[in-house]
Amino acid sequence: MNETDSKKCSIVVFSGDMDKVMAAFIIATTAAAMGRETSMFFTYWGLKAIQKGNPTGKGLFGKMMSLMNRGGIDRIGPSRLNFGGIGRWLFKKMMKDKGITSLPELRQMAIDLGVKLLACQMSMDVMEITREDLIDEVSDVVGAATYCNKALQGQALFI
Amino acid sequence: MNETDSKKCSIVVFSGDMDKVMAAFIIATTAAAMGRETSMFFTYWGLKAIQKGNPTGKGLFGKMMSLMNRGGIDRIGPSRLNFGGIGRWLFKKMMKDKGITSLPELRQMAIDLGVKLLACQMSMDVMEITREDLIDEVSDVVGAATYCNKALQGQALFI
Amino acid sequence: MNETDSKKCSIVVFSGDMDKVMAAFIIATTAAAMGRETSMFFTYWGLKAIQKGNPTGKGLFGKMMSLMNRGGIDRIGPSRLNFGGIGRWLFKKMMKDKGITSLPELRQMAIDLGVKLLACQMSMDVMEITREDLIDEVSDVVGAATYCNKALQGQALFI
Repeated sequence: MNETDSKKCSIVVFSGDMDKVMAAFIIATTAAAMGRETSMFFTYWGLKAIQKGNPTGKGLFGKMMSLMNRGGIDRIGPSRLNFGGIGRWLFKKMMKDKGITSLPELRQMAIDLGVKLLACQMSMDVMEITREDLIDEVSDVVGAATYCNKALQGQALFI
Repeated sequence: MNETDSKKCSIVVFSGDMDKVMAAFIIATTAAAMGRETSMFFTYWGLKAIQKGNPTGKGLFGKMMSLMNRGGIDRIGPSRLNFGGIGRWLFKKMMKDKGITSLPELRQMAIDLGVKLLACQMSMDVMEITREDLIDEVSDVVGAATYCNKALQGQALFI
Repeated sequence: MNETDSKKCSIVVFSGDMDKVMAAFIIATTAAAMGRETSMFFTYWGLKAIQKGNPTGKGLFGKMMSLMNRGGIDRIGPSRLNFGGIGRWLFKKMMKDKGITSLPELRQMAIDLGVKLLACQMSMDVMEITREDLIDEVSDVVGAATYCNKALQGQALFI
């Protein structure tokens, strides 16, 4: 690991839970603000965080996935206390009351700070998500090999 | 990453599940026993592991959180097989039968070995937890920036 | 962290969910294919991924664990959308339709690429799993200390 690598921070965002996605963006924005070259690799359920929120998928599974993902990043629920949407509402209200940055704002901060948003090709294939279903700011759609080779360096977290 | 950093081990404890918290403490105590400078950053549900267990929170959300967290570290259930407390009881019984160190003992070992316990300021705000609700051994209450800057170095795990 | 360590990749497989286990094997095979010395440490629910699938355990807890684990790696369900097995079936069908490598094949690839599969002694004790219940390709059954000392070096992920 050379000098350059130590300045890198890489986060695999596997989870689609609001609280975990928030933690991922908080770590990413903090690392980027500190001058580290930071990338996020969105895979499986984590793809929700970079989707536009439109319906996707034509097959049965694709449609089920799409139903769960409707609404994009603003409709993501926390990993606990969800109760069919009440948890998300409460979480968002609490955060607003406490003056904490919302998930869409955090994502925008990450983009503004130059955090690279990478999407996992294989997950997109399985879940029938196309490049057009993702927000424009996504830097690249890559395979696991490319990700491991280019981005999974320096400090890495799996969230 | 210099020589010093390679001796560091940092664990973000996001989960509040008994089995994951145990894994976190086992890795932390092992790393510390091997001479690594080890820190644990408790955030979101992970805060349960360093709470005294008294009721906290005045708002609706704070009260709900408090209800889920009552009893402190000894009342934490595993991520699976919980069945309203049976899982925890079985897990604890099994561990006792096998002579495995309990969660409160593991935490004490970590403290004795000099593992730094850090609490996440933002999570505490959202969940209405104060410094007084945490065990005295917590080293510091810090923000994400301080954590990333000082502690998220060397080997890092997100649990 | 010296030159050698930077070539290492170490994954703690704590989760027993099909999607997370898949992610672990994909990262491990990719890292190994890139020439990194890669090891996987299977602990708690992650042990399912290296079990033969036969009934294990004599006590009540051991039997409950065994019931949940029956069938080995081919019977593992995803962390979401499981619905009593439908999710697994759909996931597997989707992956087959898309030409994606199955979980048993991924595990074989990891073995062929020289990824070291390590099993956690303590978890095996708690869950009443013996060496004979694990697939022959498991390299070693080790404690947390051995693991942290030998394997938890270089890049480490907790899945």
